[in-house]
Amino acid sequence: VHRREWENAGRPPIVTLLTDFGSGSGYPAQMKGVLLAAVPSAQIVDLSHEVARFDVLGGALLLEACVPRFPVRAVHCAVVDPEVGTARRPLCVVDGEGRRLVGPDNGLFTPFLREARCWTITTDQVVPPSLSATFHGRDLFAPAVAYLANGGDPERLGPGIADPIRLDWPDAVRRGDIVEGVCLRADTFGNMITSIREDQLAGERMASVLVEDRSAHLVRTFGEGRTGELLAMLGSGGRLELAVREGDAVREHGLRPGMCVRVRLG
Amino acid sequence: VHRREWENAGRPPIVTLLTDFGSGSGYPAQMKGVLLAAVPSAQIVDLSHEVARFDVLGGALLLEACVPRFPVRAVHCAVVDPEVGTARRPLCVVDGEGRRLVGPDNGLFTPFLREARCWTITTDQVVPPSLSATFHGRDLFAPAVAYLANGGDPERLGPGIADPIRLDWPDAVRRGDIVEGVCLRADTFGNMITSIREDQLAGERMASVLVEDRSAHLVRTFGEGRTGELLAMLGSGGRLELAVREGDAVREHGLRPGMCVRVRLG
Amino acid sequence: VHRREWENAGRPPIVTLLTDFGSGSGYPAQMKGVLLAAVPSAQIVDLSHEVARFDVLGGALLLEACVPRFPVRAVHCAVVDPEVGTARRPLCVVDGEGRRLVGPDNGLFTPFLREARCWTITTDQVVPPSLSATFHGRDLFAPAVAYLANGGDPERLGPGIADPIRLDWPDAVRRGDIVEGVCLRADTFGNMITSIREDQLAGERMASVLVEDRSAHLVRTFGEGRTGELLAMLGSGGRLELAVREGDAVREHGLRPGMCVRVRLG
Repeated sequence: VHRREWENAGRPPIVTLLTDFGSGSGYPAQMKGVLLAAVPSAQIVDLSHEVARFDVLGGALLLEACVPRFPVRAVHCAVVDPEVGTARRPLCVVDGEGRRLVGPDNGLFTPFLREARCWTITTDQVVPPSLSATFHGRDLFAPAVAYLANGGDPERLGPGIADPIRLDWPDAVRRGDIVEGVCLRADTFGNMITSIREDQLAGERMASVLVEDRSAHLVRTFGEGRTGELLAMLGSGGRLELAVREGDAVREHGLRPGMCVRVRLG
Repeated sequence: VHRREWENAGRPPIVTLLTDFGSGSGYPAQMKGVLLAAVPSAQIVDLSHEVARFDVLGGALLLEACVPRFPVRAVHCAVVDPEVGTARRPLCVVDGEGRRLVGPDNGLFTPFLREARCWTITTDQVVPPSLSATFHGRDLFAPAVAYLANGGDPERLGPGIADPIRLDWPDAVRRGDIVEGVCLRADTFGNMITSIREDQLAGERMASVLVEDRSAHLVRTFGEGRTGELLAMLGSGGRLELAVREGDAVREHGLRPGMCVRVRLG
Repeated sequence: VHRREWENAGRPPIVTLLTDFGSGSGYPAQMKGVLLAAVPSAQIVDLSHEVARFDVLGGALLLEACVPRFPVRAVHCAVVDPEVGTARRPLCVVDGEGRRLVGPDNGLFTPFLREARCWTITTDQVVPPSLSATFHGRDLFAPAVAYLANGGDPERLGPGIADPIRLDWPDAVRRGDIVEGVCLRADTFGNMITSIREDQLAGERMASVLVEDRSAHLVRTFGEGRTGELLAMLGSGGRLELAVREGDAVREHGLRPGMCVRVRLG
């Protein structure tokens, strides 16, 4: 499936990296050294290396926002991996669109699992004989990504699995004309991303938004808001977001992950 | 004009990015996904994603320091855009040297406007039918940059304009043998960049430098200073800078943007 | 020597950068502009721009961890340079493996000097007639790196030297079955890297590890530790490291550079 979409056809292969290592730590650079040794013309793109340490949900939300912006032939490597060195499985995912993702089996790829096929990575073509206990990003995932970027077959990475770990993904629930969700994560601007996705509004108009007991002003753009006012809008990542015009919604309105968000439709 | 200098002639096209998004936010990565889908072999270079939020002057000074270091055929995308979602115009600038810059029309390109030609970006070749209200960097500017990097004609992006927004650019003034300017912005080392440019000294020797009522020691290099001493020198960006040897001039000498700087020539 | 390993043979040349400039400062970007003008197809990889300001030892340890992960044909440019503008020499190193490194002669390349050949960089092919006093990374080292990446001969950069500066490198000492070293630097996770290298254990089993008077639990992976417990393990960079499972060893155990570390073998 999708094999033709993976062909680089003379274009440089694309590899993306997402980790919680810190861009200045030297660890992403070591992964790039391994990648470039095996895929000399790779276009390597950093999605982020500033995921909060061990924040698997935060990493998953960033993947959800970034991965679909890349051509399907890109290979995505994500490492937020509190359990490195334990028995957690190394994972390769091919999602319903044919996108290939590689990293630990800990829920990081939850947004891509709906119609996915998954494999654990066991082949000694990519797993080194003496695997480091602490840096699978460099010693296991980067070689697996290089194998895929060079046209390797995901089915040869190891046995297929049907039970990849899924995050208890905080989705939205519809009751009548109310869609109820929660605050998930703040972005670097202090905008709060919620669990309510655009497709869950089913094309219906939002009439009002409540965050706990506070009303948010529904706008299409920041520009429609007054300074300091709590705004709600569909953000660029396809989720309902809470924001303040030229301000920091998290700080100015005390928003926290887990707070209840209610949208009335109609 | 300059068309020949824009030819990539077998070399990878160069695209630079400058934003206030934060390199770990995932937003620059989304722009890169769009760019690589349209310009697969692009050399994408981050100028900075750490411009202080909405600091248009800070972004303009960084562009002034960085852009001239790149070949003229590079295309520069800069997004520090507090007014995204309002009526502010999307802008393409071709400066007197033939450099192409794309971003919001809010003064960010002031250092390049002296002999520039400018266009608003309106063509539906790059403006998507449903433009996001909050992320023009990804949905409008990146496609415009890709169009130019692939050899597209700036004149076809939209109507030419004669009145791009200019920052009230804090320039230097000469009175007799005194050149007077102000402190502008600190760099990451705590060096203070001033509004006095090398070309405004007209090749004349500086005799002394005063910052408000404090004297600064004129040196050619840090190495000529004593520890803790306030130094003045022509910096690598072509502007007079205030510095401390192996120290932080801003913190150690209480420098602030807007402080008066006087150079006596002769 | 090694000339054949330097051939790019149709692959894009690789250049790595390590500085203490800050990735958002615009300074690394200016170096990249110079590099891409001279080496249009270069794969430029940031090792780190977040080395603590003027921390030559920290930069050297990062180079030691990162450089060996890249193909030998890569050229490495490192600039942590408190003495820029003084008489310190600009240096090109070719180490025993044939790796090429360029930067200030201040000890930054200590891990690579064992069987190295070294040259000062004086040729006017790369040293500009009016060298900036403050930004040799852009105006001297980047041109030298471009020269090498394009296949230039290190011997033509300038006169060979036999006395490159070496850091008083804090090595480990063996006395009977005790290997004694010190805490060197913390990484971004709060893991403490020590001066004890894997090869100094000579393949022998570690029986116990003391940090000053505290015992550390010897493990092969984080997963074997209990929460909060001080762990010792061979890290991914080939050095003994002190860590805490899903925690910050530096903060939780008050580790500081210079603290004594004793490994009992057997």
